[in-house]
Amino acid sequence: MKEHSFRLTVACPDAVGIVAAMSSFFADEGGLITEANHFRDPETRWFFTRQVIAADSLPYSLEELRRRFEPIGTQFSMQWQVEETRLPKKVVLMVSKQAHCLSDLLYRWRSGEMPANIAAVISNHDDLRDYVEWHNLPYHHIPALEGSKEQHFQAVTDLLQDINPDVIVLARYMQILPPTLCDQFAGKIINIHHSFLPAFSGARPYHQAAERGVKLIGATCHYVTEDLDAGPIIDQDITRISHHDTIDDMVRKGKDIEKIVLARGLRSHLEDRVLVHGNKTVVFE
Amino acid sequence: MKEHSFRLTVACPDAVGIVAAMSSFFADEGGLITEANHFRDPETRWFFTRQVIAADSLPYSLEELRRRFEPIGTQFSMQWQVEETRLPKKVVLMVSKQAHCLSDLLYRWRSGEMPANIAAVISNHDDLRDYVEWHNLPYHHIPALEGSKEQHFQAVTDLLQDINPDVIVLARYMQILPPTLCDQFAGKIINIHHSFLPAFSGARPYHQAAERGVKLIGATCHYVTEDLDAGPIIDQDITRISHHDTIDDMVRKGKDIEKIVLARGLRSHLEDRVLVHGNKTVVFE
Amino acid sequence: MKEHSFRLTVACPDAVGIVAAMSSFFADEGGLITEANHFRDPETRWFFTRQVIAADSLPYSLEELRRRFEPIGTQFSMQWQVEETRLPKKVVLMVSKQAHCLSDLLYRWRSGEMPANIAAVISNHDDLRDYVEWHNLPYHHIPALEGSKEQHFQAVTDLLQDINPDVIVLARYMQILPPTLCDQFAGKIINIHHSFLPAFSGARPYHQAAERGVKLIGATCHYVTEDLDAGPIIDQDITRISHHDTIDDMVRKGKDIEKIVLARGLRSHLEDRVLVHGNKTVVFE
Amino acid sequence: MKEHSFRLTVACPDAVGIVAAMSSFFADEGGLITEANHFRDPETRWFFTRQVIAADSLPYSLEELRRRFEPIGTQFSMQWQVEETRLPKKVVLMVSKQAHCLSDLLYRWRSGEMPANIAAVISNHDDLRDYVEWHNLPYHHIPALEGSKEQHFQAVTDLLQDINPDVIVLARYMQILPPTLCDQFAGKIINIHHSFLPAFSGARPYHQAAERGVKLIGATCHYVTEDLDAGPIIDQDITRISHHDTIDDMVRKGKDIEKIVLARGLRSHLEDRVLVHGNKTVVFE
Repeated sequence: MKEHSFRLTVACPDAVGIVAAMSSFFADEGGLITEANHFRDPETRWFFTRQVIAADSLPYSLEELRRRFEPIGTQFSMQWQVEETRLPKKVVLMVSKQAHCLSDLLYRWRSGEMPANIAAVISNHDDLRDYVEWHNLPYHHIPALEGSKEQHFQAVTDLLQDINPDVIVLARYMQILPPTLCDQFAGKIINIHHSFLPAFSGARPYHQAAERGVKLIGATCHYVTEDLDAGPIIDQDITRISHHDTIDDMVRKGKDIEKIVLARGLRSHLEDRVLVHGNKTVVFE
Repeated sequence: MKEHSFRLTVACPDAVGIVAAMSSFFADEGGLITEANHFRDPETRWFFTRQVIAADSLPYSLEELRRRFEPIGTQFSMQWQVEETRLPKKVVLMVSKQAHCLSDLLYRWRSGEMPANIAAVISNHDDLRDYVEWHNLPYHHIPALEGSKEQHFQAVTDLLQDINPDVIVLARYMQILPPTLCDQFAGKIINIHHSFLPAFSGARPYHQAAERGVKLIGATCHYVTEDLDAGPIIDQDITRISHHDTIDDMVRKGKDIEKIVLARGLRSHLEDRVLVHGNKTVVFE
Repeated sequence: MKEHSFRLTVACPDAVGIVAAMSSFFADEGGLITEANHFRDPETRWFFTRQVIAADSLPYSLEELRRRFEPIGTQFSMQWQVEETRLPKKVVLMVSKQAHCLSDLLYRWRSGEMPANIAAVISNHDDLRDYVEWHNLPYHHIPALEGSKEQHFQAVTDLLQDINPDVIVLARYMQILPPTLCDQFAGKIINIHHSFLPAFSGARPYHQAAERGVKLIGATCHYVTEDLDAGPIIDQDITRISHHDTIDDMVRKGKDIEKIVLARGLRSHLEDRVLVHGNKTVVFE
Repeated sequence: MKEHSFRLTVACPDAVGIVAAMSSFFADEGGLITEANHFRDPETRWFFTRQVIAADSLPYSLEELRRRFEPIGTQFSMQWQVEETRLPKKVVLMVSKQAHCLSDLLYRWRSGEMPANIAAVISNHDDLRDYVEWHNLPYHHIPALEGSKEQHFQAVTDLLQDINPDVIVLARYMQILPPTLCDQFAGKIINIHHSFLPAFSGARPYHQAAERGVKLIGATCHYVTEDLDAGPIIDQDITRISHHDTIDDMVRKGKDIEKIVLARGLRSHLEDRVLVHGNKTVVFE
């Protein structure tokens, strides 16, 4: 990530003149827009945009940019944010015993493919400690035994408040977060569910899929809300199966889809490509 | 379909010696097996096979083959059938106003790609008459007005009993069949549903999909049973959508998936590649 | 196509202020931009945009819009065009004996899905006349016998000059166009080739694919240039095959890909979503 | 791999009675066939089969099975082999600097998903030593400097002869093997090439793809022969790209396809699902 850019994302009610105001704002100071995506939802008449501006083409800092853009934001009732690409987001990974998503994300991180700082890995099991620590990353084992779930989530919450991450990734964490935790980090928690939602939400989706006799299995990357597996969807994908595939085969084939969908969805989020509106997402590719 | 073959399909409890008995039966008379698929379900310990034998390599007729095979069928408690490829199945297409599946199937039929005799097209609207009749196929318009559904289905049932088809294809017929009709033609009615079931069963699946904000839409080809959209699945597929896609776009993109999935599933059925067991299918490709 | 909009497409060297100038131009008159895509090629530093403006939000006509936009076009050295969505493009379809693409496109046209006027179908065979004429479309049979290819192409060229189409679609036309014809309608001729180019260009691609033992077959929709199967690619797709698939199976399965890829690529072209630059395309979805 | 089975694979000229002879052979001793695939190539009239027999259902050992099956093999001029699932194949991985395929395969191995013994990793660079050694696997760094390629390959050959692996996986090894090495391990060397062959064989396929302006990129898993990138193909897959994708994006997206296609192809090979015939493969799924 040697690119040095400002990333501006905006959601607001549509109106004539928004793009003109924004592009004139940058053009007046010689700002070079290197990427721009616009979307107008014809149903809600809401407008979304993501723009990337070469930082060196502007004569001021991130803070100054934010200060100057404020009036435009106010004029058009924008929900807006500007980020700098040199400041990667702080990520916490939460896992259980299964390593496929964790292993995949750590490879992407150590090879420089994933633009993020991993602050910690939290798990309710100790199994993956060695692997994580080989990466020189802190590993927090917080058991989640039956009957002590409250303490588990209290400890998790305390730790997360300490770390104050930008993103929490449930990389097959297998525990249902309490509503307070969902609220506290709303819009910041990303989950991978091992089915093409809304089919087979809840527990054991591959078993549900086998029971129904489907010919496709899939995975869904979504933001976590209080409603189990019902938050805004970022990405989904599927793979074909046949009568030959046992549940074990489905689990194995599904892992490859889970890894890819989680990595793709997380990448979109890390690059500020996902704008949430209601229970839906705009994902600018 | 110039190929002249016998197609044998078998489902039975697994046992040692089934394949030996069947293959010796054919080998003893010089029968050349040109295709063979086997599947043993490890969970139910049930065995499925589909075998194609070059008809000219055997010294007897279809009837004689059936008579001679009978003892093997009995010995292993087989559900079995033998068909001859020169006798294509008799198909009835049922449609409403939308022509995409009908048009696709009729192209496949008139170009010789679909190995079937189309006996009739039945519709609750008269819209597609001209197009169907251009193909020199009989078109039966049986209105299905609110309040007269019973008469509609009585007339449909009478007509179907008259025609006595091997397969009834609901090519976007948009009416829920009464249980008696489902029963009467159990295993012979194929529907295309415009979602990746079990997600979005019932009415207006694209509207449901838009509401949920999914990133994939799909279609499912399945046998019709009394339980709406819950019969054994033959084939499914999906296509990607994004926030740009309105419901109209989803309908348009979905049609391409519906056409392909229905044609593929129907073809499998016409070639005796689908063996139903419980609420699941074995589909030999 | 009840939508009434202006579609503006632009390609020009990148510079600060292009989007500002364009968006201010529309905003100043109250023009509502309903769709906007931008792309800056970091390698060539060339800028591409497609913008759709609600026609009723502007106080002037298409001609007036063109006249007023001219100075901006000149200022930034733009290649630009504006089209009105109420004026669909005039299309000529060219076919040989195979009907799958023709049949697919005609369905899309008669169902209102394809925003185009089909002016004529030209074929070197008479086989598809009845089907085309059922659609009340003119069918021109111009034989292309060995030894009389020159006359064939002279007659084709004369007819095309007469019709003066916006787009010529080679829907499995199976004849190699002479360079003069390619030149005369440069950027307006769209072909479907039955392989994932650049693999298997030229004749009998499915036979080539079978020979090589590939596990995928595909189709490519591209603009026709003098170089056989080497023009700018609009869209491609593939389907999986296995050792079970004979060449006949590949031909059959390939047809479904050809139909979809041609329809998708043509639709992009008809909606002015394809901008050609050198031998590549920018396709705004 | 707790399953205890014998895996029999056969390729031979087709004849009446092959399946009968084989299935009777097993049935006579009470052998339970748990998986069976047959394929008759209608063009070459060659017959292929893969059968899995529950080892505990037979009263004899692997060696005894081989001895007893010998006469059937001779009778039908079979190329045949029997393997025992409890004896996983010995694998050597060869890599260069890029870790995506290596990392993916090592995850699959350590999680028990890949039924193989990894005997060693060989690399022309030392970069991946730590990661490999964390897995308690031997890492051999054999430099391949310009001008010393012969020594490199001599050392590699010596090491491989020492190890005597069943399979050599070129997991983005980036060096062209000399013909003698290809010959010596014919049918045992598996490569992943980062394009959908035969398109873009040779060096820098993503650059070639960018140059041509394709809308798909892919990967191909194939057996290595003397002819560069021309050996029998085991598996292929693709992913979509657009004008937005730079070569860096293509490299990144391509890695995900390379990993999956290599893992899938290797798995098929490890499970004796791939039968090579001429320059093509039969892959029993």
